[in-house]
Amino acid sequence: MPLSPFTAHLHEQFPLAKYMQVKVESWENSTLRITAPLAPNVNHSDTAFGGSISTLGILAGYTLIYIALKERQISNRIMIQNSNTDYRRPIDADLTAVATLPAGEVLEEFLEGLRRKRRARLSVEAQILSDKVPAAVHTGIYLAFIY
Amino acid sequence: MPLSPFTAHLHEQFPLAKYMQVKVESWENSTLRITAPLAPNVNHSDTAFGGSISTLGILAGYTLIYIALKERQISNRIMIQNSNTDYRRPIDADLTAVATLPAGEVLEEFLEGLRRKRRARLSVEAQILSDKVPAAVHTGIYLAFIY
Repeated sequence: MPLSPFTAHLHEQFPLAKYMQVKVESWENSTLRITAPLAPNVNHSDTAFGGSISTLGILAGYTLIYIALKERQISNRIMIQNSNTDYRRPIDADLTAVATLPAGEVLEEFLEGLRRKRRARLSVEAQILSDKVPAAVHTGIYLAFIY
Repeated sequence: MPLSPFTAHLHEQFPLAKYMQVKVESWENSTLRITAPLAPNVNHSDTAFGGSISTLGILAGYTLIYIALKERQISNRIMIQNSNTDYRRPIDADLTAVATLPAGEVLEEFLEGLRRKRRARLSVEAQILSDKVPAAVHTGIYLAFIY
């Protein structure tokens, strides 16, 4: 699946993601990687700004659900209900967020909820890496709608 | 106290805050209000993007601590350790975040920690309003350093 339409989608839908230069990097084996360069996302200590780290985590979960539903031909809208970021070490390199689609029962329940009630909730964890080193963890609770 | 230097400080220190057009609006009775227009912070539903809401909450707590310490002639650096946002209703107007400096023992312990160990932790809650209606709550845990 070509990924550049998903990057374009993020930039169109969220001007902040465009400013941050967020890019959908890969989608393989139900795992999504999105990236952002450090420069537009820097803080007063020349490391990544907490707001950018949280936002990249929010976008990782959003994009993961969006792509997973598109693959299943389910057109959707997604709202975030809760965002939590645990910042564990400074990020002094380009940022990568990695998120994996829940499998098995959790995924089935989510898809079944969408089919039955046209809306369902999913919690997605994203690791945020500084180059390749884990540096923060974002957990998002998302509500998806069939649209 | 003139507030425009604090807006300028945010824009210099955090390019993302400049992009978001964050403005320090008022600081009275230990309560800070910062604002951001909807346009650069919009999402795919023409309401405020979750990443912008979280980032405004992060900046409210940061700015509150920064100003409170500057008033006490304490030069400081502040890092966020945890960010949590609860999104309760869509924001379809300009955004305002309101945060009040903890008082009494909590504040005393924070300042005493800074004096004794040159670093101390403070939790700050910020209400995010859609026009004047409460729409989200951000809770940040911040580590401040004497610098």
